[in-house]
Amino acid sequence: MSEQRLWWKWLIEWQTPYEGHAFAVKRVLYSGRTKYQQVDIVELYGYGKCLFLDGKLQSSLSDEWIYHEALVHPAMLTHPEPRRVLIVGGGEGATLREVLKHDCVEEVFMVDLDEEVVRLCMKYLPEWHRGSFEDPRVRLVFRDGREFLSECHRTFDVAIVDLTDPVPGTPSVRLYTREFYEAVRSRLSEDGVMVTQATSVHYSRRNFAIICSTLRSVFPIVRPYSAYVPSFVTPWGFAMASNKHDPLSLTEGEIERRLSRVSGELLFYEPRIHAALFTLPRYLLELIESERSVATDEKPIYMPA
Amino acid sequence: MSEQRLWWKWLIEWQTPYEGHAFAVKRVLYSGRTKYQQVDIVELYGYGKCLFLDGKLQSSLSDEWIYHEALVHPAMLTHPEPRRVLIVGGGEGATLREVLKHDCVEEVFMVDLDEEVVRLCMKYLPEWHRGSFEDPRVRLVFRDGREFLSECHRTFDVAIVDLTDPVPGTPSVRLYTREFYEAVRSRLSEDGVMVTQATSVHYSRRNFAIICSTLRSVFPIVRPYSAYVPSFVTPWGFAMASNKHDPLSLTEGEIERRLSRVSGELLFYEPRIHAALFTLPRYLLELIESERSVATDEKPIYMPA
Amino acid sequence: MSEQRLWWKWLIEWQTPYEGHAFAVKRVLYSGRTKYQQVDIVELYGYGKCLFLDGKLQSSLSDEWIYHEALVHPAMLTHPEPRRVLIVGGGEGATLREVLKHDCVEEVFMVDLDEEVVRLCMKYLPEWHRGSFEDPRVRLVFRDGREFLSECHRTFDVAIVDLTDPVPGTPSVRLYTREFYEAVRSRLSEDGVMVTQATSVHYSRRNFAIICSTLRSVFPIVRPYSAYVPSFVTPWGFAMASNKHDPLSLTEGEIERRLSRVSGELLFYEPRIHAALFTLPRYLLELIESERSVATDEKPIYMPA
Amino acid sequence: MSEQRLWWKWLIEWQTPYEGHAFAVKRVLYSGRTKYQQVDIVELYGYGKCLFLDGKLQSSLSDEWIYHEALVHPAMLTHPEPRRVLIVGGGEGATLREVLKHDCVEEVFMVDLDEEVVRLCMKYLPEWHRGSFEDPRVRLVFRDGREFLSECHRTFDVAIVDLTDPVPGTPSVRLYTREFYEAVRSRLSEDGVMVTQATSVHYSRRNFAIICSTLRSVFPIVRPYSAYVPSFVTPWGFAMASNKHDPLSLTEGEIERRLSRVSGELLFYEPRIHAALFTLPRYLLELIESERSVATDEKPIYMPA
Repeated sequence: MSEQRLWWKWLIEWQTPYEGHAFAVKRVLYSGRTKYQQVDIVELYGYGKCLFLDGKLQSSLSDEWIYHEALVHPAMLTHPEPRRVLIVGGGEGATLREVLKHDCVEEVFMVDLDEEVVRLCMKYLPEWHRGSFEDPRVRLVFRDGREFLSECHRTFDVAIVDLTDPVPGTPSVRLYTREFYEAVRSRLSEDGVMVTQATSVHYSRRNFAIICSTLRSVFPIVRPYSAYVPSFVTPWGFAMASNKHDPLSLTEGEIERRLSRVSGELLFYEPRIHAALFTLPRYLLELIESERSVATDEKPIYMPA
Repeated sequence: MSEQRLWWKWLIEWQTPYEGHAFAVKRVLYSGRTKYQQVDIVELYGYGKCLFLDGKLQSSLSDEWIYHEALVHPAMLTHPEPRRVLIVGGGEGATLREVLKHDCVEEVFMVDLDEEVVRLCMKYLPEWHRGSFEDPRVRLVFRDGREFLSECHRTFDVAIVDLTDPVPGTPSVRLYTREFYEAVRSRLSEDGVMVTQATSVHYSRRNFAIICSTLRSVFPIVRPYSAYVPSFVTPWGFAMASNKHDPLSLTEGEIERRLSRVSGELLFYEPRIHAALFTLPRYLLELIESERSVATDEKPIYMPA
Repeated sequence: MSEQRLWWKWLIEWQTPYEGHAFAVKRVLYSGRTKYQQVDIVELYGYGKCLFLDGKLQSSLSDEWIYHEALVHPAMLTHPEPRRVLIVGGGEGATLREVLKHDCVEEVFMVDLDEEVVRLCMKYLPEWHRGSFEDPRVRLVFRDGREFLSECHRTFDVAIVDLTDPVPGTPSVRLYTREFYEAVRSRLSEDGVMVTQATSVHYSRRNFAIICSTLRSVFPIVRPYSAYVPSFVTPWGFAMASNKHDPLSLTEGEIERRLSRVSGELLFYEPRIHAALFTLPRYLLELIESERSVATDEKPIYMPA
Repeated sequence: MSEQRLWWKWLIEWQTPYEGHAFAVKRVLYSGRTKYQQVDIVELYGYGKCLFLDGKLQSSLSDEWIYHEALVHPAMLTHPEPRRVLIVGGGEGATLREVLKHDCVEEVFMVDLDEEVVRLCMKYLPEWHRGSFEDPRVRLVFRDGREFLSECHRTFDVAIVDLTDPVPGTPSVRLYTREFYEAVRSRLSEDGVMVTQATSVHYSRRNFAIICSTLRSVFPIVRPYSAYVPSFVTPWGFAMASNKHDPLSLTEGEIERRLSRVSGELLFYEPRIHAALFTLPRYLLELIESERSVATDEKPIYMPA
């Protein structure tokens, strides 16, 4: 066995009780509990530094830009000129980073429940936020998203929901319900756009479908899309919603034009791939379109499905 | 622990020595060695019946149609009227099944080295081949693909390379080299089209790039594309090549028209997604386009990368 | 990675939900379900052929003789002259094999619920039974042990209980209770001896203790002991009980003398180690001696603990 | 799956490349590299706090006392009155703790190469050392054991070798060789006794045998023994050696008498179990006794075997 190295520290992402993806851990940078969740910041072979919350990978240095660009830019560009932006969640600061690349943005509220997680990201994940928390346009609020929305009197052009999955017993559960989407809608400008991460297109495709169905119960325009994030081990689902703007009506030329307001380089998102992101395979599209269940505070969705 | 069921039989697909995907096994249908490889036919929770060769999942009942349609139809439709088709590999008979859906096909040679695997698939995987081996248009040859090509005097309109990954020490290694692609080209009609599975777009992206680079050293037109096959735990790479026909020049209308010659239902492939399959993210496209290595018999590629 | 071989088929013995021992599988010889349980006969690297029932290793070729000799001979030698022996369970036929080595034995009843398992062992595990089932002294009965005892009119000098662990929902549960031990006692001769496997001395030490406590509620003499069986990943517990005979009173000389009636080689058991088998560490002894719970049909013990 | 908790952080002890024991990690207390090795101090479900060096469990709170008492007391009691004691290795301070319980001890040299590990143990493992490092009889030396011995002019009554396994490329390799044992012997008093941990009696039984064989090439009296340490997943091997004293000649009465010089409670070791520790099963004894290989600096032993 002299040639063979056997790793001993493993993180296993259980997609289901009978399926898991095991990553060998190169280095543990931080491991501890906040008031709300277990935080592990580790270095994985092949993915670099990673943030895990309650055992679920949030993002990895090697591909966080895919996730964050896919989450932020389609919505930001679907709106003709987003000036006020709301981020619910977004602990690492990378969603914030992408939002701030849009020069038209005047104010961003980032509302995250778990101050400790944000402080840990500030300290351990500078490659993610890259100083975004220092931007004068940023308002950082440590609060539950539902509470914030119920007392907030502002309106936003774009709302970006960047949360942990709705694991039973966690505060995220109430942020994947019709009541939450109604609260978001009430704080959106008339032509506002919202987008949410929507779990895996495979392992929790039913949840993806229900998130879309729930959004359809609140917004007239709902568009599911997906992007492959290698460290997530599956294409990831997103859902955009609006009263007025439809990402499918954007031509490559129009996206190109709107991208002129973005400073800083994009590595993943570009006009060429916009349409492909929204082109889901038929079996998935039919699952989403035929879904009638609506997640509510009383009957929410849970992960794992 | 009374509530908890812990599975005990697991198949682990090792993407790298420090990353593996573990599937709990519900049932073992067959397990044995042929002259060439280890064969395991099992039922996995969530994926149904599956074929593993040397520990690598070849296809699962739940999504083999994605893989096989993505492999077969883009090439078959890129050619205006494929009458003679060659399949190299294709043990399960599902590639054959998809080819035979094209009414214009007059003759299909399926050349697979491992007769025992084909016989096992005939017996255990009827949902895959669905009687295709009985079709009078089929010529089943149990032989090494390189040998077959070197002695064959026919020409083919489409050649479909559906092989196990180039694992060191296995016969597949010599079927991912320039010499092999030259042999294929020499048996293609002037406007012939070939396509090959090209490994994972993530875990072996360098190999994917080298396969494309190697094809470019033989064919003027080479088009990489990918499709997400859930049980493969990653979008899967494919590469199409031709002297003459370019899949990117096919309009949705033209695909629609050509599909009229296909009898039998397609579940995954459709005109709407054709362009999206070929729309790789920029980071991957740049990796592929900048690749200069060419796999040769002397210096082949290997899996894992 | 060329130097590295990564095994893909694994059997995991879960000692607890948070602890498991993973064995790479070299070969699957048989895998199927009987009326009562899941049977896997596999070859493991380092242990050779193995029998798993419901995911729990029953015995491995490399060390089944440790388990079976440790189960059988202390009890058989504690009785001065066992002529009629009862085995409850014992599917592989190796317990039978060890019993038959005692020339004084005139009749052995082996009562196993699961005929299919016994037939599979006859076919696949000849190294275990070595023809024992053909011995004219053997009466093979396929029946529930409790039922057999309730209707049986014979008496036995030694009763050997060689069962699967009391996994919830399985018939074994009722064979680790006071009611069962009372039924055994009622069929023992006045100076009869019984012995039972008693689960792991570590992972289920509480169950080991309760088995002893339950036996103490029925028999005046109860002696726990243990032997390390490598493939079981833990020293294994046994408990002997009798109205009259005490294994602790046997001198090495007396054991030596009694062994003269044993034909065939013993590989593990010998006079030299008899006392050591019964010498449990104090922490375990105290756990066992202070245990007051008694397993009953109404309140049985379960595995995992 | 709501009822089911799936742990995500695992430590796997690979006994061989095809066998591993997986422990779910409850909490990470420390994880980092010293100049010599990777240190992980974690809390495991079922075992409490644990020290891992280079992925191998050194000791767990739940059973470190078994290992340390089994290592220390047989040797300390085999010597009639140990006054000067040498510990080579022993980072946690628990070997020291057990040595100091012997009132006759006047001076203990603890020689450990890795000061950082010792400092981490001082900080994180107070339950192990319990202040032993403060005892005025202790001389703590951070140095390679071989170097220390080559320059040391003292003699010792007992030498206790408490090292990590001889993993290739680590300094421990040279502390399992004849040259090392000769160096130890040269610093022992004429009737001195040495003892060393000797790896697993199962997973590395060949190494256990070679350690004994190597000791036999240096000392006239060599006695292997073992004790089951649950968190080690196997009975653990030890080997005692001396020019003069033989642990097998100690009667229970004599041990009892000598124990009067021990202050502080012993939880595992006691006169009753002394003989049992040295009673190895025949298959193991024969393996050890027939072993002729001798580990040398030039041809050392390695773990995994």
